[in-house]
Amino acid sequence: MSKTTIEQIDGLFHARTIAAFGVSAKGGKLGNLLLQGFIDIGYNGELVPIHPMATEIMGLKTYPDLITYGKPVDLAIIALHPTKVFETVKECVENKTKGIIIFSSGFSEWGAEGKKLEEEIVNFARSHGTRIIGPNCMGLYAPASKLSFFPGLPTESGVVTFISQSGSLAVQIVFASFLNGIYFTKAISIGNSADLDLSDFLEYAGWDPQTKVICCYVEGIKNGKRFIEVAKEVSKKKPIIMWKVGNTPGGKKAAQSHTGSLGGDVKLWDKTLDQLGILRVNNVRELLGHVGAFIHPYLPRGNRVVIISGPGGPAVSSADACENVGLQLASLTEETQREVGKIIPKYGTSVRNPVDLSLAIAFDTGLNHKAAEIVGKDPNVDSLLIYISVLQKAIVKGIVKAQEQIKKPIALVATFDPTSAMPGGDRMKNLFQPIRPKQTPQSLELLYQNGISFHLREQDGAKTLAALWKYQKYLQASY
Amino acid sequence: MSKTTIEQIDGLFHARTIAAFGVSAKGGKLGNLLLQGFIDIGYNGELVPIHPMATEIMGLKTYPDLITYGKPVDLAIIALHPTKVFETVKECVENKTKGIIIFSSGFSEWGAEGKKLEEEIVNFARSHGTRIIGPNCMGLYAPASKLSFFPGLPTESGVVTFISQSGSLAVQIVFASFLNGIYFTKAISIGNSADLDLSDFLEYAGWDPQTKVICCYVEGIKNGKRFIEVAKEVSKKKPIIMWKVGNTPGGKKAAQSHTGSLGGDVKLWDKTLDQLGILRVNNVRELLGHVGAFIHPYLPRGNRVVIISGPGGPAVSSADACENVGLQLASLTEETQREVGKIIPKYGTSVRNPVDLSLAIAFDTGLNHKAAEIVGKDPNVDSLLIYISVLQKAIVKGIVKAQEQIKKPIALVATFDPTSAMPGGDRMKNLFQPIRPKQTPQSLELLYQNGISFHLREQDGAKTLAALWKYQKYLQASY
Repeated sequence: MSKTTIEQIDGLFHARTIAAFGVSAKGGKLGNLLLQGFIDIGYNGELVPIHPMATEIMGLKTYPDLITYGKPVDLAIIALHPTKVFETVKECVENKTKGIIIFSSGFSEWGAEGKKLEEEIVNFARSHGTRIIGPNCMGLYAPASKLSFFPGLPTESGVVTFISQSGSLAVQIVFASFLNGIYFTKAISIGNSADLDLSDFLEYAGWDPQTKVICCYVEGIKNGKRFIEVAKEVSKKKPIIMWKVGNTPGGKKAAQSHTGSLGGDVKLWDKTLDQLGILRVNNVRELLGHVGAFIHPYLPRGNRVVIISGPGGPAVSSADACENVGLQLASLTEETQREVGKIIPKYGTSVRNPVDLSLAIAFDTGLNHKAAEIVGKDPNVDSLLIYISVLQKAIVKGIVKAQEQIKKPIALVATFDPTSAMPGGDRMKNLFQPIRPKQTPQSLELLYQNGISFHLREQDGAKTLAALWKYQKYLQASY
Repeated sequence: MSKTTIEQIDGLFHARTIAAFGVSAKGGKLGNLLLQGFIDIGYNGELVPIHPMATEIMGLKTYPDLITYGKPVDLAIIALHPTKVFETVKECVENKTKGIIIFSSGFSEWGAEGKKLEEEIVNFARSHGTRIIGPNCMGLYAPASKLSFFPGLPTESGVVTFISQSGSLAVQIVFASFLNGIYFTKAISIGNSADLDLSDFLEYAGWDPQTKVICCYVEGIKNGKRFIEVAKEVSKKKPIIMWKVGNTPGGKKAAQSHTGSLGGDVKLWDKTLDQLGILRVNNVRELLGHVGAFIHPYLPRGNRVVIISGPGGPAVSSADACENVGLQLASLTEETQREVGKIIPKYGTSVRNPVDLSLAIAFDTGLNHKAAEIVGKDPNVDSLLIYISVLQKAIVKGIVKAQEQIKKPIALVATFDPTSAMPGGDRMKNLFQPIRPKQTPQSLELLYQNGISFHLREQDGAKTLAALWKYQKYLQASY
């Protein structure tokens, strides 16, 4: 990608005037939804609804067309019927609009005819220096520059960039992340990505000084060669977490009708993505877990994991989960075992790996971090998986404090979702003293900033620790 | 198993007098925790703490020993140091106690010596007609007869029986189930299961008229031949959902130090459990999802699934998930596609499978159940996976109503946990109108009672639909 494309994308992320086509005077259209997004996040540039008759929509001065508006706009959003998109793109090009988000669907995902129209539109726009995002997409979200693609999105800014071929998913991920203490610097819904595509935004995110972690949802990769070139370099600088779908015949077909994506050979892609150091996930929760781990990671020096658990059952299950993803259960030194033995009862526990704290944990949740500090210092241990039942304030504090001594990756796994209101009422709250849901995002953020990821299943914790090790190996091999 | 053992177990579940050894006068012992469990759940028989000095503990008249108490008790709980267990068992046998829960650890999970002691104790008790649960276990939970193994457990009774080799896990599952609208008739923590074991309780649950769904957490199976005989018969009457751990070398070792379990050959067990129609899960959430599906199941006539989704991304991922577990994407009839086409916009959607409702769902969440009703009636469809972002009251009502017409298994998958308090505040609540956490258990229960399971990941939904199909095939082959 030329430096120009990075500059162009960066320009769009800092658009100061935005025109919106397809906004209804009466409301209730998708265009209104998009405009509401900008209003909600507090966009402080100029928002220009375009409408043939109305003079004001949603409190904003409205123009019949861009000629009447009279000045070039930085960004245009088109949410019109697909048959009206090309003429509107021409109007934008005439206006010297820098970039256009085509929200409208009905293009390459809609068969040969739609594909042809899509290509014509893109070729026309590009030849005049106007870049296109979409069609069939939601566009851009960037809280720092107050861009948004949906009402009510978080105003908080973070270090993560999300590139998504699904628009609704981009919205869901931003919300779900927010509940889990993860904030974005940018999220891009690229849709059919007829012009600016996954590789362009990947390279941009690799360059972008605000981005520390990159994640993406991918249905198909168009220009494989360029993607590989870009990903190889970006991956050396920043972790790339990828949710790639369309891996089965049925999934492939679904991807095609969703964003017109052609999947390619699955096994070949699996191998290629592996070689590029790309970390794979398969659903929203795995994605969140991985992102949390890479916000401020301590990369492991090896694959030897220790498991610490109050509930003995999940300890065994965690051992299975770790070995299933290629981690090895660390052999604790005699000294470590002796030290752990000093803090837990003799019976019903285990000082070997998995370290089983037993029901003793019900009387002293501090055992979690005490045990973590002891085993974390063991030279045979590269990473830790700690299984608790409920996230408590004291556990967060204790483990963060232990981590100051350890400085190794920790995956914290809980049975109960800390955003849960625990509808069992006071009885359960008194028993478990869970973190209050309002404090959950903040507590989880504190964990991430200390190299502690958070998960609701042992398999997720194990997979994340394996990803940290996989990424560390990629970095080592790259230099 | 003789009829006698079923009767014996049933007798323990209806114990009218319970003696507790290992309760401290000052509190803070594990024995006190167990006693508190009985008090909290409102046990209405006679609770008899045994203590050498105290005359009253936790408000209960206390005796120095069973001889002084003078009458035979139905059930004794021993939470003493392992070296004191045998003499106490002798005291119970003398008393003609019907059953003993040995909470204490330090037996077969503790090596050869512990194993020998465990065997001696069990042989002695059995030869005198006293049955033993444990050692290294929590015992019995049965809300209808007001038995409990932990403080604060739900008093609500249901149709599910859980048999667990992990005590802490039994406690966690009961709580987690409660939050998700699943209630137990019985839960049994069997620990080392030196006398009454998995097969005994499995056969009991198969007989028990209160039990409709059986689930278990298993680290190792001792008498394989008997287990296979029992499971084969029970599985014909009631679904058995099994979380089997210790499937890797590390997990096996962990299981051994946890409950003294020996795993056996993993691949052979996998095949055997499959042949017994047993449905496998790998963590707490999968277990809950499966149980919900079997509370009132509509078993599918085949493996052809339809996917309905608002967010297009998860629709593709769901297609992958379904095919990965052996389900086949149903080909919708022309008529079905036409009918679906009438309720959704032409562009940005799909009337083929997966049915993509697109962002139109943001304006009308009723599209979910309208689409479900149309595709659910398609003769090519055996089961449905519906992916939504947030569980709303209107969605629950709509899908339950649609199900009255469909009568096919439905897996409902949501991105956001409906127990979540949505700490984003009113902004997010207004946008998504999530079900209030307090209503979540009740709403989920309503879904289960209508053959609709609930999940937080598309992979879980797909696996559950595959389990229903697998169980249906087992039943068909058995008759």
